[in-house]
Amino acid sequence: MAKLIVPRSQSFSEWFTSVVLQSKMADYSPVRGCMVIRPHGYALWENMQAGLDGLFKETGHVNAYFPLFIPKSFLAKEAEHVEGFAKECAIVTHSRLRATIKDGVATVEPDPESKLEEELIVRPTSETVIHSMYAKWIQSYRDLPLLINQWCNVVRWEMRTRLFLRTTEFLWQEGHTAHATEAEAHEEAIRMLGVYKQFAEEYMAVPVLAGVKTDSEKFAGAVRTYCIEALMQDGKALQAGTSHDLGQNFAKAFDEKYQTEKGDWSHVWNTSWGLSTRMVGALVMTHADDEGLVLPPRLAPIQVVLVPIWKGGPESEEIKAKAAEIGKALKAAGVRFHFDGRENQNPGFKFAEWELAGVPLRLELGPKDLAAGQVMAVRRQALEDSYIAEATGGAVAAARPPAEGAPAGGGGGGKPPKPARAKESIALDALAARIPALLDEIQTEMFARAKAWRDARTRPVDTYDDFKKGVETGGFLVAHWCGEAACEAAIKQDTSATIRVILSEAPAEDGACIRDGKPSKKRVHFAVAY
Amino acid sequence: MAKLIVPRSQSFSEWFTSVVLQSKMADYSPVRGCMVIRPHGYALWENMQAGLDGLFKETGHVNAYFPLFIPKSFLAKEAEHVEGFAKECAIVTHSRLRATIKDGVATVEPDPESKLEEELIVRPTSETVIHSMYAKWIQSYRDLPLLINQWCNVVRWEMRTRLFLRTTEFLWQEGHTAHATEAEAHEEAIRMLGVYKQFAEEYMAVPVLAGVKTDSEKFAGAVRTYCIEALMQDGKALQAGTSHDLGQNFAKAFDEKYQTEKGDWSHVWNTSWGLSTRMVGALVMTHADDEGLVLPPRLAPIQVVLVPIWKGGPESEEIKAKAAEIGKALKAAGVRFHFDGRENQNPGFKFAEWELAGVPLRLELGPKDLAAGQVMAVRRQALEDSYIAEATGGAVAAARPPAEGAPAGGGGGGKPPKPARAKESIALDALAARIPALLDEIQTEMFARAKAWRDARTRPVDTYDDFKKGVETGGFLVAHWCGEAACEAAIKQDTSATIRVILSEAPAEDGACIRDGKPSKKRVHFAVAY
Repeated sequence: MAKLIVPRSQSFSEWFTSVVLQSKMADYSPVRGCMVIRPHGYALWENMQAGLDGLFKETGHVNAYFPLFIPKSFLAKEAEHVEGFAKECAIVTHSRLRATIKDGVATVEPDPESKLEEELIVRPTSETVIHSMYAKWIQSYRDLPLLINQWCNVVRWEMRTRLFLRTTEFLWQEGHTAHATEAEAHEEAIRMLGVYKQFAEEYMAVPVLAGVKTDSEKFAGAVRTYCIEALMQDGKALQAGTSHDLGQNFAKAFDEKYQTEKGDWSHVWNTSWGLSTRMVGALVMTHADDEGLVLPPRLAPIQVVLVPIWKGGPESEEIKAKAAEIGKALKAAGVRFHFDGRENQNPGFKFAEWELAGVPLRLELGPKDLAAGQVMAVRRQALEDSYIAEATGGAVAAARPPAEGAPAGGGGGGKPPKPARAKESIALDALAARIPALLDEIQTEMFARAKAWRDARTRPVDTYDDFKKGVETGGFLVAHWCGEAACEAAIKQDTSATIRVILSEAPAEDGACIRDGKPSKKRVHFAVAY
Repeated sequence: MAKLIVPRSQSFSEWFTSVVLQSKMADYSPVRGCMVIRPHGYALWENMQAGLDGLFKETGHVNAYFPLFIPKSFLAKEAEHVEGFAKECAIVTHSRLRATIKDGVATVEPDPESKLEEELIVRPTSETVIHSMYAKWIQSYRDLPLLINQWCNVVRWEMRTRLFLRTTEFLWQEGHTAHATEAEAHEEAIRMLGVYKQFAEEYMAVPVLAGVKTDSEKFAGAVRTYCIEALMQDGKALQAGTSHDLGQNFAKAFDEKYQTEKGDWSHVWNTSWGLSTRMVGALVMTHADDEGLVLPPRLAPIQVVLVPIWKGGPESEEIKAKAAEIGKALKAAGVRFHFDGRENQNPGFKFAEWELAGVPLRLELGPKDLAAGQVMAVRRQALEDSYIAEATGGAVAAARPPAEGAPAGGGGGGKPPKPARAKESIALDALAARIPALLDEIQTEMFARAKAWRDARTRPVDTYDDFKKGVETGGFLVAHWCGEAACEAAIKQDTSATIRVILSEAPAEDGACIRDGKPSKKRVHFAVAY
């Protein structure tokens, strides 16, 4: 099974694609640039949705649904916005097909008589159509704040696409809020940035930097764009979620006004914020390894898989009965449990398959375990990951010391050694208590390892030469920047690196711009990005 | 509040629209034929999704996501299918906008250079793109059955649209399965018809007839279409969900084959089945009344609203504290509870607002209740509904006798009398036990009343004259039909009534076709339909 996965050391991008395809998270579709999210990937996305949606509701948001289509004239109302999206729009121009027969061959084509008076754009994002509705719904200060989120599909015509990371159609949520004051809108944009950081770190175990984008990277139509940025295992950064302070740009374009308590009229202040299926790519590139996916327990569709070790015969029935008992106890304890009772596959095949699928914890139950009243619990994530260890000069290898009884590695013949994994035997009557705790430990350790990795690959640089060298090895380069867009563009031109984020909590520090030596008051995070 | 609702007796269709708009379930959008589902309507849809999704998972289905776009040539592969959908397609022809300036005015238009080589159709349904993937995924009998569902938006260009009932874009689920044998596929189509019936009746409290469609009403590309049909309060039928036995039509069009255990290759057998946001319209037209929405407890976003009866002063604090206690107890008992603590609205206003929103149960808590250690519980659904009573000649009026203490009606001045509602006082310490039971009772009674209504408006007819008169008064007309499509079409032409469903369990009965007198072996259900 594992041989289906291209090793990271050979080609990181082929590794990524092979993990996504072989673990059956997604597949290419016959539609250019669009992917199919297969059941294994979609179940993960559903768990991500549930987690994030819970955080939205805790912060007072409700869900709604707005149209897929945006009239061309709406998109054009906010000048920067249309400029930002015009080049990547799917445009609907007709509403009917007609068949014509020529030389005995039938062809189907748009019926010219069904040409639309005004073309419709498949939403690349929904600010325009949503603010046209808000303008109608909002009358008074009593109607504010309006805090609505939408889960939907959007389309941005991409020339070069990659599974999950950049697809013409993708799934996301987009929050759109309206507030009475600038301060409240600002507070909301920051609050949702915090929600994204919390979700990334606590649910996905993906450490992120949170801060503001430079003007050149901000959303088309925003006053300010905040973001969370993660660092992938190849040392490239990935923008994982954005929160925009829109000021009154859309409010003015759509005449979105409210009557204040005093009775005069004022434009509202807006925010929007989005997180997409791209985040699934971030999860893969943070945690997966050369055996396949590694899923954090909080989001894993299956958290624990039990593989029976049997050879037919009477003990099989006993093992099956015990497995059912374990399943019942674990499900009652809130664990997403699966029993792999397939008769036509051996345990080794099953182990590899569930490792590929990223299930965080495997339980093994054989006749000896049964006799001893225990199961063996084996973690998915390896104790050591040579790819990670190498990239950090050994600084990040194991998240924890091997547990008692952990194998030293091994696997014979010509195959590469199997990575060592922490194991522990757990008494059957302790399972319902131990397994949830163990899943929590795994979650915590996955985050800790990813954070150690990110921190090991984040470093200050003070000369442009070091900067250029740093770009080659990857990671975040924390450097001074003069604040000028032209200089930022020149750095990108020279090195491909961009300013990923200016940390909210970056300390004030006098310095000189990495490129032109002009004065700078704080460092910013540069990286080559996805 | 209630005056915002057009009475059913005045105009049923205006009543429907006013209920949907005024209860803030949905709104018109600036995009022709597309609606906005507002938070109150979307929360209901989310509960419907959760209920239905649970039933899908219990029957072994998993979710996935397929592309929004379908290449034109794919749609054309199944001849009947393209014929059925060609006239209502949104067609994407370009991928870029460009701005041109003429006489100083900027216009945005599709960039001719971005014209697509092959046009894309926004999915009206996903059989074609899904079976192209299944053809790739299915290799062996071991890969079968494949049982996948998708929650998504679809587009069918409608000329005359109505909120929820017929919109250009709508939300739905579409299940698509592949099986090794014809018998298994047939069994699946019937199973999912049963799931739809269970969902409609047990969750939505909407009684439905389940059976098969005639050929003229079957899905484009299906061998046979099964459906559930409900009867609205105006006596018109509404198709609420369909399940299709696709035979091998799509399997052959997309070369979807598997290797049997014996080693030879065979085309698979498919089904598809869908239920959409149209079902929200069915819910409204089954249960709502002249005061607004009436939601069944199992699906209501808020099941119980507590309205404090206070006039400021010290007892307000006590009431607030007690309300918090009640909320805690009810939430712990699994009840979706809301406390309406607004200070700037009086109880009468709040009552009307929550009635309009359809919350199934209202609790009232005033100083006297507090002193007596109780709350007053008032049901949303009226004991008598004159519109319903009139249409059934009094056969269906109250679902149950008035409880002790139920008011005789009342409300003074020039306003129409408020409808009487069952009330009961409940001791505070009995709430956590009584409220869930009471919600169950309401759910059961809503179904019973709707079923009594449906049954009262379903009747056998044996002459074409009676049939024509029956069509005028509405309801299901159960009549003999010769089985010929031409005759069915003639009846539709004469009367607007169509055959809604041929019941699976319809007893064999020799008779004569209602129109042409030819022999018939069983009766079918006719009605005028939405």
